[in-house]
Parts: sequence; structure tokens; C-alpha cells
Amino acid sequence: MSRIVYPCGPCKIQRKKCGDKCILAPYFPPNDPHKFFVVRKIFGASNIAKILEDIPGEKRGDAVRSLVYEASARLNDPIYGCTAEISRLQNQVLHLQSQLATVQAELLNAHGNLVVSQNNENEDIGFQYDDDPFGLWAPL
Amino acid sequence: MSRIVYPCGPCKIQRKKCGDKCILAPYFPPNDPHKFFVVRKIFGASNIAKILEDIPGEKRGDAVRSLVYEASARLNDPIYGCTAEISRLQNQVLHLQSQLATVQAELLNAHGNLVVSQNNENEDIGFQYDDDPFGLWAPL
Repeated sequence: MSRIVYPCGPCKIQRKKCGDKCILAPYFPPNDPHKFFVVRKIFGASNIAKILEDIPGEKRGDAVRSLVYEASARLNDPIYGCTAEISRLQNQVLHLQSQLATVQAELLNAHGNLVVSQNNENEDIGFQYDDDPFGLWAPL
Repeated sequence: MSRIVYPCGPCKIQRKKCGDKCILAPYFPPNDPHKFFVVRKIFGASNIAKILEDIPGEKRGDAVRSLVYEASARLNDPIYGCTAEISRLQNQVLHLQSQLATVQAELLNAHGNLVVSQNNENEDIGFQYDDDPFGLWAPL
């Protein structure tokens, strides 16, 4: 992680005292105000801090990334937010499952045809030796 | 939609005046306090109201459902929230795409074998009439 700069973006915007005990400082540097703007608009600064307080330090970076993702999705689509992406992926899963079932059925069918075809092939050979009605293929 | 009851859940909890101009009342009835508890804890009451204000009336029900879904996911998984479901679905899509590619390749292969097998079958028949070296199958 890069060097933490005080005051952090949120404390600068909110004109609050900032220091090494600030829970937001490692994730919201003052040179990236948009990142904080997005999560603040959707979750609120105090909710972000409360969510991070309940998470172990080494997982807070992941939590901030997921919160920024969710907040950006909500700003882009105020009605569905990131549930739009969940719906899109669910539909893609259903479509792929259906495609897979179709191709698996085609494969079973092709194997069936191959077995029938190979049986026919074997029957021809069988006929030559086992059921040769004219004795034409008897060993010399 | 069922009859709106005043004060709604949020106004009752926040001891605010409630009436037919309350934007939250149609979606947060007083008999379902948990629904408001969940979204308030993650987004905050004022952010919920602000999000709904920017959405056309007929779409606010969908927006509340998606907000409740997101907030519940964040309470269940404070680190990843509903991005955990997005990751899970993305992995499922990748797995299905890989399965589909495998089965499609098997199908192509099976069709190839079928064509070879049918060609062999046809060759047997062809041999009997066209290339019969001993003249054994000549028409009687």
C-alpha cells in the first residue's frame, strides 16, 4: 500500500481532524476525491466507517473495493444498482445451461448414431463370415 | 399495492411526521420494521429517500427491492456484499463456457467419427458392386 497522506480525502471534505487512527485514511487518499464522493453519496460517510470497523484490517481494502463497485453501479443505474449485473449473469447462466443441455443431447444422439453405424458395419463383416449363404467367403 | 398505513415504519422509528407526501410510506409499512432496519443500517434513511426521489414513481418498488437485496447481502457478508454473488455467477459462467466448449469439441469429433464410420459402411457396399475383384457379386 502507498504512503498514507493526512488529512485523507473524507476528512478533508468533511473538515474533520485526521491522523493515524482514521479508519478511512488508508483507502481514500486526498488525491482521489471521486472515490469517496461515490461511496458517500450512496452509503454515507458514517456508514462506510461503521462497516469498516466491523471488518478485520487485512480485509478492509477488499471491502472498500466492493463498496465502490456497488456505489458506482447504483449511480449508473439508480433503480437496480448492481442487481442488474446479477440478473444479467443469472440469465447468461440459464442460457449457457440450456445450450449445454442441447449440445449434450446432440452428443448422446451422435454417439447413438455412431454405435448404430458401427453395428451396421460389424453386421456386414459378420455376414461375410458367419452367414455367407453362398459359401463365397469360406477360408481358402 | 396494499393500503398505505401512516405513520410508516421509517417515520415511526425516526419519530417524524408522516403522511401522503412521505416517499418511504408506500414501501416500508409499520408492520415490517426489519425491512427498513436493513436498508437504514447500510444506506441510511436519508440516502434511501434521496435515491427514491430521483426515480419515477412506478419504478420505486423495484428500487426498494434491489436496495433491500443489496443491504441484506452486505449484512450477511460485510466484506464483499452482493459482489460475492457477482463473483460466484461470473465463475459459474466461465465454468459453463468451458464445459460447453468441451462438449462442442466432443460433438464435432463424434460427427467426424460418424462420417468416417458411414464412409467405411458405404465403402463396404461400394466394394461389393464396383470393385469386386473376384466378380462374386455381379448381378445374376
